[in-house]
Amino acid sequence: MNDDKLTLKTCEACTIDAPLVTDQEIIDLKPQIPAWEIIEIENIKRLKCGFAFKSYLEGLSFVSKVAAMAEMEDHHPEIILEWGKVSVSWWSHKIKGLHKNDFIAAAKTDEIYSS
Amino acid sequence: MNDDKLTLKTCEACTIDAPLVTDQEIIDLKPQIPAWEIIEIENIKRLKCGFAFKSYLEGLSFVSKVAAMAEMEDHHPEIILEWGKVSVSWWSHKIKGLHKNDFIAAAKTDEIYSS
Repeated sequence: MNDDKLTLKTCEACTIDAPLVTDQEIIDLKPQIPAWEIIEIENIKRLKCGFAFKSYLEGLSFVSKVAAMAEMEDHHPEIILEWGKVSVSWWSHKIKGLHKNDFIAAAKTDEIYSS
Repeated sequence: MNDDKLTLKTCEACTIDAPLVTDQEIIDLKPQIPAWEIIEIENIKRLKCGFAFKSYLEGLSFVSKVAAMAEMEDHHPEIILEWGKVSVSWWSHKIKGLHKNDFIAAAKTDEIYSS
């Protein structure tokens, strides 16, 4: 349903007592970001996805667009730029895991890559 | 000696049979890039250094400048952008380790950060 479309939402301020996404929310939201993996580093879940590029500068241009979106959302990913590939990881530092914001930001990252 | 100043040199084309830096060359060159660590991932030595920034966008600006230098040198690092920090790693994929190019590029990265 359009009401649930992640790219139409914006990240909310995340406080230290904000809730982690529940397993049911992950099941509901994950189909909107099918390419993303849920990985765990030091017991903290992250959403991670790799994006392919023909050149380093095309990758850099994507990094800049994702960073601009991150500033708008006031939510900042880890981005790895290398030749031919950019990897983006979203998680919520304050709550040491995944918040709904991370799914919104991941969906917006996909939208930037598609555009 | 100025003749040996890394920031005055440019990267040369690196072929698959180019020599890895010798231990003596590492001893000679490393003092010019004191903040950089030599790390090893999957048996491949890399030069890695973290740079601090007050904001994500200041970090992004540094990423763009390092990427522009990388294009000029036709040698491309892995760059990790996160809130407050940018990490840069240089190594030579073709020879699976460190070439003199990596020391030149690391010194130029420091120069960009200082400027």
